[in-house]
Amino acid sequence: MRVGACQMKTPMDKAAALAKAEDMVRKAAASGAELVVLPEMFQCPYDNSLFKEYSESPDDSITLRRLSEWASAYHIYLIGGSIPENDDGRIYNTSFAFDPEGKRIGRHRKVHLFDIDVPGKIRFMESDVLSPGEDVTVIDTAFGKIGIAICFDMRFPELMRRMALRGARLIVIPAAFNLTTGPAHWRMTARMRALDNQLFFLVVSGARDMDFSYHAYGHTMLTNPWGDVVCELDEKEEILIADVDLDSIERFRSELPIMRSRREDVYQKIYDR
Amino acid sequence: MRVGACQMKTPMDKAAALAKAEDMVRKAAASGAELVVLPEMFQCPYDNSLFKEYSESPDDSITLRRLSEWASAYHIYLIGGSIPENDDGRIYNTSFAFDPEGKRIGRHRKVHLFDIDVPGKIRFMESDVLSPGEDVTVIDTAFGKIGIAICFDMRFPELMRRMALRGARLIVIPAAFNLTTGPAHWRMTARMRALDNQLFFLVVSGARDMDFSYHAYGHTMLTNPWGDVVCELDEKEEILIADVDLDSIERFRSELPIMRSRREDVYQKIYDR
Repeated sequence: MRVGACQMKTPMDKAAALAKAEDMVRKAAASGAELVVLPEMFQCPYDNSLFKEYSESPDDSITLRRLSEWASAYHIYLIGGSIPENDDGRIYNTSFAFDPEGKRIGRHRKVHLFDIDVPGKIRFMESDVLSPGEDVTVIDTAFGKIGIAICFDMRFPELMRRMALRGARLIVIPAAFNLTTGPAHWRMTARMRALDNQLFFLVVSGARDMDFSYHAYGHTMLTNPWGDVVCELDEKEEILIADVDLDSIERFRSELPIMRSRREDVYQKIYDR
Repeated sequence: MRVGACQMKTPMDKAAALAKAEDMVRKAAASGAELVVLPEMFQCPYDNSLFKEYSESPDDSITLRRLSEWASAYHIYLIGGSIPENDDGRIYNTSFAFDPEGKRIGRHRKVHLFDIDVPGKIRFMESDVLSPGEDVTVIDTAFGKIGIAICFDMRFPELMRRMALRGARLIVIPAAFNLTTGPAHWRMTARMRALDNQLFFLVVSGARDMDFSYHAYGHTMLTNPWGDVVCELDEKEEILIADVDLDSIERFRSELPIMRSRREDVYQKIYDR
């Protein structure tokens, strides 16, 4: 399976963002990508104060209509990064997925919200504006099962493992680490989640825009079941195109028996206490 | 708290191994270490065919008597790497821990056994000889709670998390990665387990001995809650001495809120299905 990951810079204007997203999706498809991914909040600048204004109800969403049209026009699976989803006044950071007929086949609402409040140092509370998701998300595709989670979600090995246990062979993470956490943790986390779960792992960042308040790390990358980086971008706006050898997973899993050596009986014992 | 990790080369002769272990423990204590750790199978060469012969029953164990004596003589907490434990004919890969009075305060039997059988390529079945442990191990010390697991156990984020949730502030792993998995995964795993669980993580290897059949990677190291390597050895026989600032854990956890952002409700939902 060939994947395309669009590391785009999100303009302030939503129409311009959608036009740029379409342009990148079209180019990725033209490069042979069968699954195309956009970054977190690709049609809304990453700013708590804008999420409500840019939010859309799934029942009447220009962004979802466009994503569906692109998936079907280019005959691709499309994971639409994420958008602020407005569900009757509650706002979620949500990723919607579409099949090559343009049918919506998945929805992941970011489960782990990033709330930090260190008096006198930093205060950033996603939960001031956003509501958390409640579900683990794995979609079915012609290539097999694909897990979807968003940014801070990837910090939690439990959620990654749940997707793997449900059969995900590739996990896709639209995300936006910053210039502190990015250099420190982005690569290591992408490598380790792939290794721990013996699957492929695709983290898709927005491009870095030093003119905007949030500076994304970039470095969209694909890692493999051995924990190696297969392919990686720098911080600039660009499309990552990579081939994912999903059949290799069984070989990795037989040669290093992590997934089948798990001791669910021991882990469960702890939950039961 | 100052820790000392003895990266020792295990001689074939058990008496010689115990003498060398004592020498290294004494030196670590003389350097101010308050917790001293030996590597996996420090009194038995790492070979399936030797575990039974070198095994000892805890009720009548020369090794456990010596470990207790050293702990009390040097007034240290001592985690005795691991030994082949003989429990009525069943052999476990077991780590015993002692307090500064020489009292036994913990026992961890390796939970995850490494079994691999790729026809025509490699066959190595720990379970041919060893029985698996059934418990998560966290000991109480004057410095706080310390988790103990052995080698392949560290591949499993569930077990690491269980120790963290039980209050471990330091996890100690006597281990012996090889020259394939060592360079590929040792450092990344030690860094990531510390970061994921926002605690200190000490992995203690034997020294490399190219004259023996199993070639240990070495690289005993301490990592911190930000996922950085604090201190690291190379492959030679040596003692790592490092200060662990356990009070810094609260700062790491407040500035990057991983541990308190967990969504046990969502993870549990999956177990309930």
